[in-house]
Amino acid sequence: MTGAPAHVVLALDEVFALSRKVLLRHGASGAHADAIARVITQGQRDECHSHGIYRLLVCARSLRSGKVDPRAEPTLRDIAPGVLAVDAHYGFSLLAFETGLPVLAQKARGQGIAAMAINRCFHFSALWPEAEAIAAQGLVGLAMNPSHSWVAPAGGTRGVFGTNPLAFAWPREGTLPFVFDFATSAIARGDIELHAREGKPIPPHWALDGQGQPTTDARAALAGAMQTFGGHKGSALSAMIELLAGVLIGDLTSMESQAFDQGAGASPCHGELVIAIDPRRFGGGEAAQARAERLFGAITAQGARLPSQRRFEARERSERDGVKVPRALYDDVLKLLD
Amino acid sequence: MTGAPAHVVLALDEVFALSRKVLLRHGASGAHADAIARVITQGQRDECHSHGIYRLLVCARSLRSGKVDPRAEPTLRDIAPGVLAVDAHYGFSLLAFETGLPVLAQKARGQGIAAMAINRCFHFSALWPEAEAIAAQGLVGLAMNPSHSWVAPAGGTRGVFGTNPLAFAWPREGTLPFVFDFATSAIARGDIELHAREGKPIPPHWALDGQGQPTTDARAALAGAMQTFGGHKGSALSAMIELLAGVLIGDLTSMESQAFDQGAGASPCHGELVIAIDPRRFGGGEAAQARAERLFGAITAQGARLPSQRRFEARERSERDGVKVPRALYDDVLKLLD
Repeated sequence: MTGAPAHVVLALDEVFALSRKVLLRHGASGAHADAIARVITQGQRDECHSHGIYRLLVCARSLRSGKVDPRAEPTLRDIAPGVLAVDAHYGFSLLAFETGLPVLAQKARGQGIAAMAINRCFHFSALWPEAEAIAAQGLVGLAMNPSHSWVAPAGGTRGVFGTNPLAFAWPREGTLPFVFDFATSAIARGDIELHAREGKPIPPHWALDGQGQPTTDARAALAGAMQTFGGHKGSALSAMIELLAGVLIGDLTSMESQAFDQGAGASPCHGELVIAIDPRRFGGGEAAQARAERLFGAITAQGARLPSQRRFEARERSERDGVKVPRALYDDVLKLLD
Repeated sequence: MTGAPAHVVLALDEVFALSRKVLLRHGASGAHADAIARVITQGQRDECHSHGIYRLLVCARSLRSGKVDPRAEPTLRDIAPGVLAVDAHYGFSLLAFETGLPVLAQKARGQGIAAMAINRCFHFSALWPEAEAIAAQGLVGLAMNPSHSWVAPAGGTRGVFGTNPLAFAWPREGTLPFVFDFATSAIARGDIELHAREGKPIPPHWALDGQGQPTTDARAALAGAMQTFGGHKGSALSAMIELLAGVLIGDLTSMESQAFDQGAGASPCHGELVIAIDPRRFGGGEAAQARAERLFGAITAQGARLPSQRRFEARERSERDGVKVPRALYDDVLKLLD
């Protein structure tokens, strides 16, 4: 390996084309491959490394598990004036989201606030691309989902909750939205996986080992339970996401999703709850835009960052210079085409 | 004072009657006095000491400031099929909530999900009584509001956000709901006020002093800025609450609410966003109740607590034995009747 460059530089359209090719090779329909490749490209572009082309390895494993239907066509059901249900029929979630979004947006514009329940989907992606897609429609977006029961409740020792991410986006005129997307676990599962892959230790507040004790060993953490962020408050939020994006929408909790996997190691199969709000149907009026900008200005004026600022800076770099992919990862992805 | 008992024991109906009397004496209409006394009694009952009869001192100060209209009658406006706006006309928030709740519930049952914006209200109460009132209708409840700009964003040094509480309630059959209500600040403002009152030090992660440095001095903290819980994640949530319960609904952000107060030290005047969801309009079906109970059972089986468990235990004690009020506080409240 001496002298070989440690990274490969790819243009964004190369990332998309490579991702699409891998997905098609593993049996995805064109519609699924497009939807997934778009989001993987966005992850790589924004330097969310655990949600970039690394995820192709995870997708391929899910597809090989035989649990995911890589050609499933999502179907929509209007279940209330403010509620849309999308059945993913055991396909990946992203095409289900894309298919439902126009109807969700229409409902939000009509009702002021509306919800989309995505059911029976395999889920591996970050939620910020979805929150951003809602904001691109001029709507406020919220999205959340359970995962596998990797995370212990505050005061507990064993996994009950998923990493249960919560994403939010607020549209801003003429610039990128205010967006956040965080796991209610102390850290994203993918980050512990990357630490394990690279043999690096993890901070002690991330996870518990199999005996319920804090650990710095990423592999012990993967075999034990992660911790929530922010103590009992993060734990409460995580429970809320189990209830709203699991129980409410008639889909699996993280414990049930883990059991459903039967040790196959596929991406979690469960549901997702997406809420869209039309600011034009609330009382904010003309002044809202300026009021929001004053809030953002007060944050940045004291040197604090807006969430996603780092991601947006990466986006600008990647769109200009392409993305750097570690060669070992690139080689692993190419092997998926063998 | 030697030999005088340190506490006074009151029955819950005595707490209610005392609260109502104080409020009427300070000019509240009967409807406002009832709504406020109910919630203060609930706070004292559940041993949320900063939201019990201590709040009468805060209410009285707000009423004396002349900013609050103690007889304002809330008016309702149907602004979208899924959105109700309640104008509190610069009265306290609680009567506005009570007045709007039946319409919000009706909208949630019709649409599946609905929102209530309460505008131009003075706000001093915890949100869990409201979340619980929604759950008592068989609906899932979410409530949030800004306050005054006492809280620095993660990475910042000066106040921008309010304590910005978020409350959630999930109705359970035959038992008290799953409820949480937490400040997105590291601690409730009232807790720092109580520490200052009692001359007790505070933990260093609660607040920054006027120079933006962590402090253990409660009075320095009140003059400086509080910190958010959970680092950048808590800070992101707090920003979301400014946007949803301030900008979206056409009401003041915490910075604007602070400016509006003009140093009067009244309770913050701003808006509140309440969301109600009807589980019967989503896909959870018959199995939902049992699924939720399995989740709660998995949490408590490993010795972890459900949020509000401590509060519910206090409730049981208080309903049986009455509440203990520190004599100094009781005397201060009685002085409000002079």
